[in-house]
Amino acid sequence: MATKTALTPPKAAISATTADRRQAQLEALIAAAEKRICESGTLSLKARDLAADIGVALGGLYNIVQDMDALLLLVSSRTLARLGEAAQTATGHLPMTTRAEAIERLVAVAHTYLAFARENLPLWRMIFELRLDSPLPDWAAQDQLRLFRHIGEPLHVIMPDLDTLALTVRARTLFAAVHGIISIGLEERLIAVPPQKLADEIAWLTRAACQ
Amino acid sequence: MATKTALTPPKAAISATTADRRQAQLEALIAAAEKRICESGTLSLKARDLAADIGVALGGLYNIVQDMDALLLLVSSRTLARLGEAAQTATGHLPMTTRAEAIERLVAVAHTYLAFARENLPLWRMIFELRLDSPLPDWAAQDQLRLFRHIGEPLHVIMPDLDTLALTVRARTLFAAVHGIISIGLEERLIAVPPQKLADEIAWLTRAACQ
Repeated sequence: MATKTALTPPKAAISATTADRRQAQLEALIAAAEKRICESGTLSLKARDLAADIGVALGGLYNIVQDMDALLLLVSSRTLARLGEAAQTATGHLPMTTRAEAIERLVAVAHTYLAFARENLPLWRMIFELRLDSPLPDWAAQDQLRLFRHIGEPLHVIMPDLDTLALTVRARTLFAAVHGIISIGLEERLIAVPPQKLADEIAWLTRAACQ
Repeated sequence: MATKTALTPPKAAISATTADRRQAQLEALIAAAEKRICESGTLSLKARDLAADIGVALGGLYNIVQDMDALLLLVSSRTLARLGEAAQTATGHLPMTTRAEAIERLVAVAHTYLAFARENLPLWRMIFELRLDSPLPDWAAQDQLRLFRHIGEPLHVIMPDLDTLALTVRARTLFAAVHGIISIGLEERLIAVPPQKLADEIAWLTRAACQ
């Protein structure tokens, strides 16, 4: 089945035209899935609807992706790539030579994450709701781990005594803490930090944790 | 419909025997829901199965609770009550006269929350997955807000300059941060803080935020 998935693109055996058409169909399918997730959430996503959206039969859809998990993983991966670009654009140029600079860069990364979550709420939620039946493929794991450099690099300046493993754990702790505040906050639950206080509270926590 | 729910218990018009029987059925129904949530999660919970579990017809179930949302809210409320008892038992006796004592009491509260989440994983998850179609009833809101005293009381000793509103926001920030670390951690996602590091990292974050 491996040649059917987008995870291992077809090569020599298939003509360029077929490969191009397949890639175009895959792009259309991902776009259709993103649109439906934004409109009505991930739970109500149906293969049959997506097949209709891009004008193929249900069986044809499974010539484009192996199954719905593979499609959701591609959607999630695209969202994460956009998050990485947003972090790079908003914070990549900020200095982090001194400890104080590195702390403010980390605050900027946290604020970029908040803005991205707000602007991409259904797609952002989907990343964390995704429960795969099979292990995460290596390329998807690498996608996720690579993003942590936006936290790990300034954190290394702030906590130079931590070894690589401890720094990895600490970066995950800070990420999960900020994620928790944003996640409960954007759901506007009773117990949430109010939306208009989110940016301030995230900045407070990041600075306090790094002092 | 209000008289059908457990939220407004029937009184004078119904004999003590009927009220007792109704209460016993409600207890059985909550216990059946808890059992099924622990075994197979909240998403697969069906009114028909629960009616069979407690030996009533499907229509009879709606004489006990108004709808599934009302039942899930009662289950959630019971879990929160047990969490409150756990916090009281594990930390209520700890001193918080000095700032240092108050910080360590807050760490103990966070560790109690971690232990409770680990030991009650499906019921704990359910509280945060619950999406009600109608506003949270006042009694349930009060249940949730009351729990925050376990954070707010030590925090008031640690941050005596904060006014009531700022203290409320800060308590929610700390709660959501610790909740985020535990929530991603117990799902054992790729990017999670490893399970064996959770207690240490939560303690680190709590102490760092309070210094």
